[in-house]
Amino acid sequence: MLSPEVRSFLERARRAHLATASADAVPHVVPVCFAVLDEATLAFAIDDKPKAPGRSLKRLRNLKVNPRFALVVDVWDEDWSRLGYVLVSGRGAEIADPPRRAFSVRALRARYPQYVAMGLGAGHPVVALAIDRVHVWGRLAP
Amino acid sequence: MLSPEVRSFLERARRAHLATASADAVPHVVPVCFAVLDEATLAFAIDDKPKAPGRSLKRLRNLKVNPRFALVVDVWDEDWSRLGYVLVSGRGAEIADPPRRAFSVRALRARYPQYVAMGLGAGHPVVALAIDRVHVWGRLAP
Repeated sequence: MLSPEVRSFLERARRAHLATASADAVPHVVPVCFAVLDEATLAFAIDDKPKAPGRSLKRLRNLKVNPRFALVVDVWDEDWSRLGYVLVSGRGAEIADPPRRAFSVRALRARYPQYVAMGLGAGHPVVALAIDRVHVWGRLAP
Repeated sequence: MLSPEVRSFLERARRAHLATASADAVPHVVPVCFAVLDEATLAFAIDDKPKAPGRSLKRLRNLKVNPRFALVVDVWDEDWSRLGYVLVSGRGAEIADPPRRAFSVRALRARYPQYVAMGLGAGHPVVALAIDRVHVWGRLAP
């Protein structure tokens, strides 16, 4: 699903932008820190970055009623011949299985030293994003 | 609607991430160049950046059947105490009125020198995003 070039592009990025939608098709989008779990799965956590209660979890409320997601990773350059992005879409759900959850937390901590000091226990949902479509546009080279 | 602080934050940013959803609630998200038209309206154009036909216009096809949008502008920093974003939502529609369209093109060209050399004529839809909600999280200071 994720080619080596696309996977490498995603892994070089420090954040993505995750879109979800409510059951009645109202879209929502937030920046997210994420890890690549395997060739067809990403993960992100609801972490301790301070957020306004409620609103902050809209991404999770949406996924519960409508698992469809779209996530884009892009690079900006004032030279527009150097722009590029990877847009992946599929279905997301909170990870319930403890070993899989622990694997995902390790993947997130490996990518983000900030997570090493931050508790990511049971009160912090970890979400798997199962990719069923990959769209590449523009330039992915470093 | 947009406070001076929020407007200034948006105007410092070079791109945003725009989420739309199809009528059946499948979300989509892409990076977009945008301009602030006034305290309650943003605009973006479908421009000549080379794109795969069809897929590239998903944002427009979605807005035609479901005008709801969400757009986020965020700043990334490895020091997570410095993260911040502005999330705006509302309804988007292509601008049909010629003077309003011309005003929007001027606003986009004022922000992006890249657009000065690029045709933004009738074949390039310009979309107004009418904001009805603003959500601020984290740090907006430069």
